[in-house]
Amino acid sequence: MSDLRTQIYEMGARARVAAHALAKASSAQKNAALLAIADELVAAQPTILAANAADVAAAEARGTASAMLDRLRLDAKRLAAVAADVRAVAALPDPVGRVLREWSHPNGLRHTKVSVPIGVIGIVYESRPNVTSDAATLCLKAGNVVILRGGSESIQSNLALAAALARGLAKAGLPADAVQLIPVTDRDAVKHLCGMDAHLDLVIPRGGRGLIETVVANARVPVIKHYDGICALYVDQAADLTKAGAIALNAKCQRPGVCNAVETVLLHRDVAAAFLSGSGRQLLERGVKLRADETTRALLGADTPGVTAAMPEDFRTEFLDLILAVKVVGGLDEAIAHINSHGSRHSDAIVTEDAVAAERFLAEVDSATVYWNASTRFTDGGQFGFGAEIGISTDKLHARGPMGLEELTTYKYVMRGTGQVRA
Amino acid sequence: MSDLRTQIYEMGARARVAAHALAKASSAQKNAALLAIADELVAAQPTILAANAADVAAAEARGTASAMLDRLRLDAKRLAAVAADVRAVAALPDPVGRVLREWSHPNGLRHTKVSVPIGVIGIVYESRPNVTSDAATLCLKAGNVVILRGGSESIQSNLALAAALARGLAKAGLPADAVQLIPVTDRDAVKHLCGMDAHLDLVIPRGGRGLIETVVANARVPVIKHYDGICALYVDQAADLTKAGAIALNAKCQRPGVCNAVETVLLHRDVAAAFLSGSGRQLLERGVKLRADETTRALLGADTPGVTAAMPEDFRTEFLDLILAVKVVGGLDEAIAHINSHGSRHSDAIVTEDAVAAERFLAEVDSATVYWNASTRFTDGGQFGFGAEIGISTDKLHARGPMGLEELTTYKYVMRGTGQVRA
Repeated sequence: MSDLRTQIYEMGARARVAAHALAKASSAQKNAALLAIADELVAAQPTILAANAADVAAAEARGTASAMLDRLRLDAKRLAAVAADVRAVAALPDPVGRVLREWSHPNGLRHTKVSVPIGVIGIVYESRPNVTSDAATLCLKAGNVVILRGGSESIQSNLALAAALARGLAKAGLPADAVQLIPVTDRDAVKHLCGMDAHLDLVIPRGGRGLIETVVANARVPVIKHYDGICALYVDQAADLTKAGAIALNAKCQRPGVCNAVETVLLHRDVAAAFLSGSGRQLLERGVKLRADETTRALLGADTPGVTAAMPEDFRTEFLDLILAVKVVGGLDEAIAHINSHGSRHSDAIVTEDAVAAERFLAEVDSATVYWNASTRFTDGGQFGFGAEIGISTDKLHARGPMGLEELTTYKYVMRGTGQVRA
Repeated sequence: MSDLRTQIYEMGARARVAAHALAKASSAQKNAALLAIADELVAAQPTILAANAADVAAAEARGTASAMLDRLRLDAKRLAAVAADVRAVAALPDPVGRVLREWSHPNGLRHTKVSVPIGVIGIVYESRPNVTSDAATLCLKAGNVVILRGGSESIQSNLALAAALARGLAKAGLPADAVQLIPVTDRDAVKHLCGMDAHLDLVIPRGGRGLIETVVANARVPVIKHYDGICALYVDQAADLTKAGAIALNAKCQRPGVCNAVETVLLHRDVAAAFLSGSGRQLLERGVKLRADETTRALLGADTPGVTAAMPEDFRTEFLDLILAVKVVGGLDEAIAHINSHGSRHSDAIVTEDAVAAERFLAEVDSATVYWNASTRFTDGGQFGFGAEIGISTDKLHARGPMGLEELTTYKYVMRGTGQVRA
């Protein structure tokens, strides 16, 4: 057994002990810990920013791209925002102890299905150091112990943040083992962590496809993940083209780098020309590059600047940029089949005034969130009113779509009797 | 790529197509298919029983133990019961389309969280051929497509049952690919099936630990499993010993070979002598062998027949027999700690008249079902009123404890708007 494996399994065993303690903690105690953590993050600002500056300097020395450097960088304002987020989590209702269902057996045995913490959660992530605090505090609020494994590029920042989290926990009388950071950034650490079924109840990878693939291939515990956000907008035959244009512009341009932005527009052949001559032009004027099928190119005119021929893989790509794949389809069935075979089960929308077509789309598109006459940009824990979000699941089990605090709990059945035995 | 892998992936691709069709099927259509399946099972009785006789003869020739032969054997009465179970599933409410939550964004965008089928489910099982029909029909009722992989010992029975299922589906106009049986009993088939994340949404192994370990080690999709049922009964200081005795006898003796039978009794030291002199003797009279710790042996008398010294592993063993591990503990904390470290998170009970102790036990024991003054034998889909049960999950995610039809669904968010875009 490797030393690294032993080290991680020892962390796991301590996490399990802490989980039993944390499951007993009252809402008041968990909230006190969250507020203490926020205070510690503010108090430790010089240490955290110095550690972060070391990470950034090392990344610059490696020639890291500026977008990545920006994701890595903390400053006083960003750190204050991180602390404010922790306070906001403290103010949310406790997701543990909700009575989900109650009923009695004919013999009087009372059944209560009640929400409880999941237990020990592993979070595997890359670059953004704020995940260290965000993920840990959401897990803590839901009574879960967390084992964090951040990327090598943010290791100094993560260690400094984790130290502040541990001090906050200790101040509130909760076990410091409730938040543990694996100090080793070797990818073997990921493999050991997500294979540790004795001590881990769930692993959530947050990062690129390579990281997620490593977790899925090695996990012996449940994984909840977010692969791509390949979201589509279908403009139906019966679409209000004003709505369709506004939604297309919003879903593509308002924030193109996020998972709930639209990457594909499917146009019913009867409205394609009208949509393209109006909203198509507007998209091009906003700097959107169109990867268009043959029919779309013919409708727009052969040499329109910004328009190129779509390759098949363009309809399976999360561009995260001002790029949009466009295709003309024969009708609703073709649109639904395209989305179910090319999409990523994240968020897809139909624009139509035809309620029958809309309801078929909503029922038959197999995605976490399906929209009728609205922008896909609303798939977001904040917009859903969850108050906080640990991620958006493109999986189908346990949690689907935006994951807030409730999705960080499971349930148990509590049975209160008076001596009932089975006949 | 092996031929077997190709074969299974082709089944998976057909299953995905069938899943989209089945997700659209009405309750009436699914119920019609279930009733047609029940009719086909009855009509095919000669073929199914002949196939089963061939399986039984082959098992006998291999020298299979009689208990196993009994699990394998079908007769006219058992097959009629299988068909009756299918009709009972048809009569249950449809778990798909339930509105789980509804709310609106301040901008008027309507959110509906609605239950939907999971998609394609793999069931990997051993020996009992009735699982072929039970699992397939429960999945079908919940709108799921199923890929079955039974054991080699029941392959002829399973093929005959699957053919009847396919005929029933066809009669109701549903795709025959909605229920597929892998005709290959090689364990490599299990590995390919549960690694097939492109076409499979969930795998449920039902069988011995070796089979479950194979699934867990190879799965790239969520697994919901049932490991051991190592259930404990804690007789508290404030127990009503009449209740405690009745519950102990029921939980151990009423049906010792099932997962919700008690395997461990923990006795508070203040009531151990009284419990043992009464209920302890009764257990021994009922033929229960006690694996007892030193204190228990001293209280019972050194050479009491049926009492032997407990080994540490006895407290981690699912005996499935008239054997009970017994230990005297110092109090509630020790009992809870013992159960959380030795149990299997299935079903555990406290007997006490002390409500504070009971509520601590119910809160702190981390098991799917926790009991106060009742027998653990109630952990059962039928007893819970679920009408049907696909299994009992000892996992914590998606489904915990008895799994009925609702647990065979997931959800999606359906968003109905009037042109809302994100500000």
